[in-house]
Amino acid sequence: MEIIIQKYGGTSMADANCIRNVAMKVIKERRRGKAVIVVVSAQAGITDMLNKKAKEISGNPSKRELDMMLATGEQVSISLLAMAINEMGEKAISYIAQQVGIITDENHTNARIKNINSKKIMNELEKGKIVILPGFQGITKDNEITALGRGGSDTSAIAIGVALNANEVEIYTDVLGVYSADPRIVKNARKIDFISYDEMLEMAGAGAKVLHYRSVELAAKNNIKIHLRSSFDKSIGTIVKEEEALMENAEIRGVAHNIEKAKISIGNIEDKSNNLTYIFNEIANAKINVDIITQNHVGNNKICVSYIVDEEDYESALKISENLKKKFKGSYVKGNKDIAKISVIGIGMKSNYGVAAKVFSILANEDIDIDMVSTSSINISCIIKKVDFVKAISAIHFNLLDEYREC
Amino acid sequence: MEIIIQKYGGTSMADANCIRNVAMKVIKERRRGKAVIVVVSAQAGITDMLNKKAKEISGNPSKRELDMMLATGEQVSISLLAMAINEMGEKAISYIAQQVGIITDENHTNARIKNINSKKIMNELEKGKIVILPGFQGITKDNEITALGRGGSDTSAIAIGVALNANEVEIYTDVLGVYSADPRIVKNARKIDFISYDEMLEMAGAGAKVLHYRSVELAAKNNIKIHLRSSFDKSIGTIVKEEEALMENAEIRGVAHNIEKAKISIGNIEDKSNNLTYIFNEIANAKINVDIITQNHVGNNKICVSYIVDEEDYESALKISENLKKKFKGSYVKGNKDIAKISVIGIGMKSNYGVAAKVFSILANEDIDIDMVSTSSINISCIIKKVDFVKAISAIHFNLLDEYREC
Repeated sequence: MEIIIQKYGGTSMADANCIRNVAMKVIKERRRGKAVIVVVSAQAGITDMLNKKAKEISGNPSKRELDMMLATGEQVSISLLAMAINEMGEKAISYIAQQVGIITDENHTNARIKNINSKKIMNELEKGKIVILPGFQGITKDNEITALGRGGSDTSAIAIGVALNANEVEIYTDVLGVYSADPRIVKNARKIDFISYDEMLEMAGAGAKVLHYRSVELAAKNNIKIHLRSSFDKSIGTIVKEEEALMENAEIRGVAHNIEKAKISIGNIEDKSNNLTYIFNEIANAKINVDIITQNHVGNNKICVSYIVDEEDYESALKISENLKKKFKGSYVKGNKDIAKISVIGIGMKSNYGVAAKVFSILANEDIDIDMVSTSSINISCIIKKVDFVKAISAIHFNLLDEYREC
Repeated sequence: MEIIIQKYGGTSMADANCIRNVAMKVIKERRRGKAVIVVVSAQAGITDMLNKKAKEISGNPSKRELDMMLATGEQVSISLLAMAINEMGEKAISYIAQQVGIITDENHTNARIKNINSKKIMNELEKGKIVILPGFQGITKDNEITALGRGGSDTSAIAIGVALNANEVEIYTDVLGVYSADPRIVKNARKIDFISYDEMLEMAGAGAKVLHYRSVELAAKNNIKIHLRSSFDKSIGTIVKEEEALMENAEIRGVAHNIEKAKISIGNIEDKSNNLTYIFNEIANAKINVDIITQNHVGNNKICVSYIVDEEDYESALKISENLKKKFKGSYVKGNKDIAKISVIGIGMKSNYGVAAKVFSILANEDIDIDMVSTSSINISCIIKKVDFVKAISAIHFNLLDEYREC
């Protein structure tokens, strides 16, 4: 019995017509003789609506109670989809996380799946039923309801794939696949047919919102192919899989951007060996993720430290930095939200020297200043002014990614 | 530790302000040193909204999946109330039916509670926490989610009272209590301070919608007082309790009406001993509840049979009756939806002869024809024309219940 796992996001489940569309896709696979497991998100808008209800009650609601509440969004989706499939003449059954044993850790609102019990799911599949499961939710070993955090439904689908030894998981969404750049910004951006796990992780980390980072990590670890595709279009989407020879032709795979970043600089602090450790420990303790870091020696045994954070952490990072400035006798703290991070990603860089130089030269030709740079073997990221970001990614895409350039 | 159980309906939980109002009432009891358990319904409108979603998908959705979906309404309520109580500085924790073990039978959409495990609830109460539980929902021994049917939240609250040996359960609603007649219709209708279980059962059965029939039954069986009161008003409501001497002064307690009834007559069928059994078996097999039944001998070894059903069962009862007419060689089937049932209820009838005669005489004085009658030791019900029902209950209330009559 070949098992297929399909995951549908909130826009794919938005209303009765969308749900019927999903039911038809599911039934098509079942009638091909496959055992089908479907993982669904809450209907579009529901999670926001529930969060709003909570916000009206409390500025800082208990995370346990938030998870209790939010789990209902997926529970409504699974039952509606089961009804739709039953209505069309196939047998379907929905189960919440607790009923099939999707076990997570205790970290409410951001839990991680530890284990999935495949027994009940397999039993139902063997009876010929389509099994419908909620994304996003889990249960602790103490029977407490948990949520995986935004986008966690992708991770649920992959984890179920792992538990059931599936080769591939189909993630249905409202775009045609992963693009070489954001198609709303770069005119010639094109759908990528194949992308390696590493590249997809870099793309996700660099701001491409199409797949949840953790889901790609989990798929990579277990070598499960992800087929990201549209639920409103029959075409093949993007296959995320292990790096293969055929992929290496391309120098770069895509260019991503993130304009929700901020830069903070602490000026002229003492240059002592433990200072950097202390600074970034303090920031980590406040649960702030730091992106690129630079350190400049400015003479007189002084250094300037700059770092990039997510825009939402800007205020708290600024406050911490003020204290650090005092502690290390610095002369100023500067903050800047008018920045963008652009990232050029591709496994091909590994065997093609000089990609970084090409990127720098393209940006220079456009008169775009590069403020900070960070590179890995398959990723070149630059911090630039926010006003320049469209020009930057367009120019990079045109020079390095367009297949049919006019020039 | 004195345990108090409070149940709040959907209108009491309608929005953030209502929920805060409920939280304050709950906290007040907690700060008096009591152990508080709160049972809540889905927010007003939510169950209807969910049912609408299901209807858009399927004309006849699976009952199992309906219960799966509807259980979410209460789950949102319990978490929001827990957040509100936490926000006000008291400790609260919500649990769904499965987590505390509210075990029901397998009868989806209309399940009955079989057992409640009080252990987890007691543990939390002993830690000083307010425990918030969903009404209406349960779980089978096989871990399937069930619903108790409309109004089942009252029953949940009483069942929890039974499991925890409580003396009293407070049912908060949007009316001040049980009334001697519908106050929207009868001007001088007044709130009843005390009513016996038997009277309350008759009132509920006769159309008073203020308490769920099964909840009163369960309270009576376990001798738990029900205090029905308003969540928007501080006054004492109606106490439903065991019959006591003090209650016996009143001749009648109240008058109820039901205008959603229909009458069906099958004319001139053969008078054989098994016919009635056969007729009402057929109707019972179609899951139609029959109310009053009359049988008239019309000579020539023929009888006419009339019976009352709920209006929603009218069409199917009519169809069955047509078949029965043919089988027993009857001459006609007649249906009539323009009827009303009025019921005069009171334990006092037991020791006060002639109440029925008084009722008949009051109706006769008003020129109201009585079509059918049914009496028990504490209930006199009459079927009359629907157009007469306001005049009928007003006259009965005026003559038998008004305390300060002008005449």
